[in-house]
Amino acid sequence: NNTFDFTSNPHTRINSLTGEKILVSPHRNKRPWQGQTEEISSEDRPAYDEKCYLCPGNTRADGTQNPDYKESFVFVNDFSALLNDTKIEHFEEDDLLSATAERGICKVISFTPRHDLTLPEMSTEAIKAVVDLWQQEFTELAQKEWIKYIQIFENKGSIMGCSNPHPHGQIWAQSSLPVEIEKEIAQQENYFKKHGTTLLTAYWKKEVEKQERVVIDNEHFFAVVPFWASWPYETLVISKRAVQDIRQFSEEEKIDLAKTLQELTIRYDNIFKTSFPYSAGMHQAPINSGDFSSFHWHMHFYPPLLRSASVKKFMVGYEMLANPQRDITPEFAADVLRKQSTTHYKKG
Amino acid sequence: NNTFDFTSNPHTRINSLTGEKILVSPHRNKRPWQGQTEEISSEDRPAYDEKCYLCPGNTRADGTQNPDYKESFVFVNDFSALLNDTKIEHFEEDDLLSATAERGICKVISFTPRHDLTLPEMSTEAIKAVVDLWQQEFTELAQKEWIKYIQIFENKGSIMGCSNPHPHGQIWAQSSLPVEIEKEIAQQENYFKKHGTTLLTAYWKKEVEKQERVVIDNEHFFAVVPFWASWPYETLVISKRAVQDIRQFSEEEKIDLAKTLQELTIRYDNIFKTSFPYSAGMHQAPINSGDFSSFHWHMHFYPPLLRSASVKKFMVGYEMLANPQRDITPEFAADVLRKQSTTHYKKG
Ligand SMILES: O=P(O)(O)O[C@H]1O[C@H](CO)[C@@H](O)[C@H](O)[C@H]1O
Ligand SMILES: O=P(O)(O)O[C@H]1O[C@H](CO)[C@@H](O)[C@H](O)[C@H]1O
Repeated sequence: NNTFDFTSNPHTRINSLTGEKILVSPHRNKRPWQGQTEEISSEDRPAYDEKCYLCPGNTRADGTQNPDYKESFVFVNDFSALLNDTKIEHFEEDDLLSATAERGICKVISFTPRHDLTLPEMSTEAIKAVVDLWQQEFTELAQKEWIKYIQIFENKGSIMGCSNPHPHGQIWAQSSLPVEIEKEIAQQENYFKKHGTTLLTAYWKKEVEKQERVVIDNEHFFAVVPFWASWPYETLVISKRAVQDIRQFSEEEKIDLAKTLQELTIRYDNIFKTSFPYSAGMHQAPINSGDFSSFHWHMHFYPPLLRSASVKKFMVGYEMLANPQRDITPEFAADVLRKQSTTHYKKG
Repeated sequence: NNTFDFTSNPHTRINSLTGEKILVSPHRNKRPWQGQTEEISSEDRPAYDEKCYLCPGNTRADGTQNPDYKESFVFVNDFSALLNDTKIEHFEEDDLLSATAERGICKVISFTPRHDLTLPEMSTEAIKAVVDLWQQEFTELAQKEWIKYIQIFENKGSIMGCSNPHPHGQIWAQSSLPVEIEKEIAQQENYFKKHGTTLLTAYWKKEVEKQERVVIDNEHFFAVVPFWASWPYETLVISKRAVQDIRQFSEEEKIDLAKTLQELTIRYDNIFKTSFPYSAGMHQAPINSGDFSSFHWHMHFYPPLLRSASVKKFMVGYEMLANPQRDITPEFAADVLRKQSTTHYKKG
């Protein structure tokens, strides 16, 4: 065990949360890049944009006028992927074709009235207001018996399919459990049965011991580049208390979560002195469908950048057909993240 | 069953090959797009480029000179993700951290000496030469006892991480089984045990009956937008004979495979009158590791374009955290593909 060569030998690692493996090729990070580069988004946006459908007072696609909001603001997505009135029906043919209607609600959360900011540039108080709204929305949606799972997430940056730079996130609530959640339920249940503690409790404590991949360690939260990270600078935020969902967070914990998100996203922006793109989201236990006490709240950050503000990792070809592959090691990425200042480069 | 509304109700479908589901939102395809658009690659390339590491006679990164080849040409990747001399060792800690060294060989296949062509612009004979080389490479690699799985694939287009427009593909041979293959083994074995026929034999016959998603149906091959397609214009190529890998293809079948690939990629290019990007690759049974007679050779095409040559589908946020989601239905995509001419738009 002690002699395993993580820094130069190609190897696979198992993602404990999904049970699936990824390929690590540490020797390969000096590969030259002559492929596609990304446009670096212009950093100058006005505080208010009259054409933005998220700015206060503006009119949206369906004719609704946004209120003159001062903190965060939530509404049902004008182009929802899921609809509230879908009747559940099932289709099945010969063990080959199988489909089930899916009912759901899709919401958009504007994080701030300010069109020109992003999460890492907002104050802790303003981020805390977003956390409060997440908690409130989750609580309300969970009251509908038919909702079984709620996905809270953010796509940041045009490279991550975000079509509006106004800082915002989404909530998709749905009538069945998504694939990734089903994998995490199975892995966490198995671990809990065998060890009597949640997988992520054991995991964050193990990472404290190791001190190789830790990025943030405060009173209530822990951020780490997981041992099994697929994306170059992927991180996992874990609540130290093993709660199932955001409803259980105390006032103190919510403040700490806001601080954690602020520090983490500032560190991200500082790596390449750019607004660091990512998809991020919470994984929480299913609701209205039984006991999931082995499920431990956490949040994934999946950022695509690899070598610079304009060169990303492509998850294509081998990755789509076989399994994810990475070049730089998680340990290297954690080191880079730890070395960043906690003051945003624009303010430095 | 007859009343299930596939064309306007949001629903999930099960991928029979992986057992995993995808979310279909057919009502959503009129969503406006204000996000990132892709650069359309310039169509004018010289037949020979002195800076290209794949062109005949040129010198590569490691100093080797390419031969003056006339058909296709193969060599070991100068920046291989896997190495031939890795010693297999294992690392395990407390059911939390698990890693295994991976040994492998990565090769690059240039499809033609012509820098300016792509697969759909090549002659059937030239594509057949590529199929021959794939078969020959697979046969040779499979003779090494330690190789358990061989992934043959192509990343086409800079949007798919391809760093050189010279038409080429890759082969990664490795000492263990990738995640996607393990899923497909389990699903195909289950089906075979229950029904006594391979899953894909039953599937292509079912699609012949339905006539809703068929794209190509010739003597030896079948191309379909699978019922469970995640990518907008994803297709699945199935050999009518249930073979486990490319070694079993006869001369006649290889000619038909070349014709199928030619016709399919021409149809792709014609949709948006552009060189259609994709990642494509064969899934074949593992080698040197037991009986996999339930595994049926097939090839996946995963193309990212959605609405035009410059607007792609982003698999981000919800897709990364929950499961894939699509807007246009597989039936609509099949219809679009069927309506395309089988003459390439540049030659029309
Ligand atoms: O090997 P290439 O073509 O340089 O690289 C490309 O294909 C590989 C295999 O799909 C991926 O791992 C890389 O991210 C991609 O850019
Ligand atoms: O809903 P948006 O922001 O318009 O769209 C974005 O996020 C969705 C959820 O991750 C994805 O399905 C879309 O592909 C992406 O472009």
